[in-house]
Amino acid sequence: MESGHLDAPRFFGILAVILLGAKVFGLLARRIGQPAILGELIAGIVLGRSALGWVDPRLEGLHLLSELGVLILLFAIGLETNLGQLLRVGGTSATVAAVGVALPFALGFVACRLMGVAHLPALVVSASLTATSVGITARVFAELGHLQEPEGRIVLGAAVLDDVLGLVILTVVFGVVNGNTLSAASLARTSGLAFGFLIAAIVLGTLLIPMVWKGIRKLDPAGASVLWALLLALTLAWVASACGSAPILGAFVAGLLLHGSEEAEGIERGITDLGHLFVPIFFVCVGAAVDVRVFDPSQRANWPTLAIGATLIVAAILGKFASGYAPWWFKGRKAVIGVGMIPRGEVGLIFAEMGDRGKIFDSKLFGAVTLMVVVTTFLAPPVLRRLLVTRGPLPSGGDREGIDELVTEI
Amino acid sequence: MESGHLDAPRFFGILAVILLGAKVFGLLARRIGQPAILGELIAGIVLGRSALGWVDPRLEGLHLLSELGVLILLFAIGLETNLGQLLRVGGTSATVAAVGVALPFALGFVACRLMGVAHLPALVVSASLTATSVGITARVFAELGHLQEPEGRIVLGAAVLDDVLGLVILTVVFGVVNGNTLSAASLARTSGLAFGFLIAAIVLGTLLIPMVWKGIRKLDPAGASVLWALLLALTLAWVASACGSAPILGAFVAGLLLHGSEEAEGIERGITDLGHLFVPIFFVCVGAAVDVRVFDPSQRANWPTLAIGATLIVAAILGKFASGYAPWWFKGRKAVIGVGMIPRGEVGLIFAEMGDRGKIFDSKLFGAVTLMVVVTTFLAPPVLRRLLVTRGPLPSGGDREGIDELVTEI
Repeated sequence: MESGHLDAPRFFGILAVILLGAKVFGLLARRIGQPAILGELIAGIVLGRSALGWVDPRLEGLHLLSELGVLILLFAIGLETNLGQLLRVGGTSATVAAVGVALPFALGFVACRLMGVAHLPALVVSASLTATSVGITARVFAELGHLQEPEGRIVLGAAVLDDVLGLVILTVVFGVVNGNTLSAASLARTSGLAFGFLIAAIVLGTLLIPMVWKGIRKLDPAGASVLWALLLALTLAWVASACGSAPILGAFVAGLLLHGSEEAEGIERGITDLGHLFVPIFFVCVGAAVDVRVFDPSQRANWPTLAIGATLIVAAILGKFASGYAPWWFKGRKAVIGVGMIPRGEVGLIFAEMGDRGKIFDSKLFGAVTLMVVVTTFLAPPVLRRLLVTRGPLPSGGDREGIDELVTEI
Repeated sequence: MESGHLDAPRFFGILAVILLGAKVFGLLARRIGQPAILGELIAGIVLGRSALGWVDPRLEGLHLLSELGVLILLFAIGLETNLGQLLRVGGTSATVAAVGVALPFALGFVACRLMGVAHLPALVVSASLTATSVGITARVFAELGHLQEPEGRIVLGAAVLDDVLGLVILTVVFGVVNGNTLSAASLARTSGLAFGFLIAAIVLGTLLIPMVWKGIRKLDPAGASVLWALLLALTLAWVASACGSAPILGAFVAGLLLHGSEEAEGIERGITDLGHLFVPIFFVCVGAAVDVRVFDPSQRANWPTLAIGATLIVAAILGKFASGYAPWWFKGRKAVIGVGMIPRGEVGLIFAEMGDRGKIFDSKLFGAVTLMVVVTTFLAPPVLRRLLVTRGPLPSGGDREGIDELVTEI
């Protein structure tokens, strides 16, 4: 991480450039009907090593801020996730989620092995294929006005489930990446730890947090609840990491535990403001870490990246699209569900970033996974728009508020 | 700055400890009638190298976040400062401010030279004596319900003026510290640059910002104005630094320029949330940088620090207290004004930190200045409380909102 020293004025300058780039490209992306996250990724590509070279995500100060960005994003997603609905989610969503995780994973793993990718990187690549971006999915359905229809609800439920499954897979992969050899025992151990942390944090949190919060309300009646909420997210992220789990799983659980609490509204407001600042830093840094020159087809050396990327894209689309047809009893439009599950968005990028950071991926694989994430994320909104007949013009972003605005915008 | 690598989970853990410590000690401080900032400083002392050693403010990621904290604080102070009132401020406030800058500076400089302190550190020490904390001052008068009375208004006006003067002095000192030799020409040059940047930024900003903001409102109607505001603060901070001025002067001007704008309310809300998170990081880091073992009177080696500190405290109190009697025509309670000007608070600490960071201070001088800041900041609230007969119990913090809450709490 330590690639040079960063002083405060330069740090302020880089932050300004990141925020301006994220905002401008985000607005441009929305102008052409795409989610803002894509604009932020492109801003990163423009500002990063592919082009201008102004943003180096390996600078420690920047890296830590972008990690704070993912923490806030996952906390926000947890905050809007109802644990009860998550547990009581219909068989339909569960089936879609399960098939939507298993099939892309299997397809990706087989494809990777056939292409000669080693065991460990093949595992991480396949894990990245299992992701569904609850943020992108929720935003697209909401923007098209179909969030409350059966297809929208099923996709949302499956995406949320997928998010938890994805986080567990992430944790497992995270454990494996951090030196544990890839054995059945280590897989069992890391997934046991991930589920163990998840269950322990949820059970203890559900019991303790209302009491703790009551004490806080008494001792600090004028205080900002968002500060205490963030404190919980930071603490659980640290505990998760100490348990050998992924820090962001802790942040997600913190959000989950505060969902529906008395303070949730104030927390959402504050987290939205923090998210507007930090979440784009994460996406811009991820974009800045991509070297798009490996996508240039005029360079023969890039053909492997493009070939692997194309294969992954096929596996990614087929696997998720098929999951829409898995609940055979469902009478609605299965294609809508299948397409709704396709975008990998931020979760896919977290995998890509982890593979890159842990030196599991070479630049070819990192490029291929990023290409897959970018293409699947780009593809879903326009296709869904064609599948669902829109009623009049798209509503502007102005009527959405708080956490919805945050999670659907980023 | 580069003292070891900081990974994300450890960073989250340190942030959690800082926020919890700041909150707990801040609440304790307020419980005993002191401003929260003192609790945060004490939290830093407990968590830093004096005691537990958990928080090392020299870690780059932490240092940059704490710098972001000062930037946000100065932006918030600028945001609540009316430029017109600043320019039209009565002769009373101006006299108090001028005498309150000149007298402590002169007393401090003479005292330092008599004690054998070299020219440059004596200059920085004297500069730290000129500060008046607008945050502390405003909060104490507001809490005692005297903000709208003549004494309160005069002190507030003088403190705000003092803040700008202090920022210019800071900029001058900052320029001198950064290698410029201490000559009349370099003093003129750096103060010219500081005033030049100030004037240019205010004039250009007043002309351009309404237009730019109009464009933003058109292009990004659903956007968070706080993001654009922060972008302005970061950019001006960077420009200020590029002009050889202090970055926080740019942040202050950014706030000044947005004061009273249509978006000010939304910006204040967002900045308050950001400030709750970042500003305590700054104060905790400053506290963590103090080694209180140099205050231990049982160690003979500490006597110089305590002697210098005691001298500075006398100069600090005398200089500001006398400034209350400078406007001889004023018929009100001059002692209230004098005492109201005493607390150095965050501005004094910025000087102390700069002297430490620029290796101008040895640990003795840094300890002495910190002791002076801590004592003057501790002293003012209880003395003011005795001078102003309070009407019933102090209002709780719950009835204050937004930026007032932020600036008065920190």
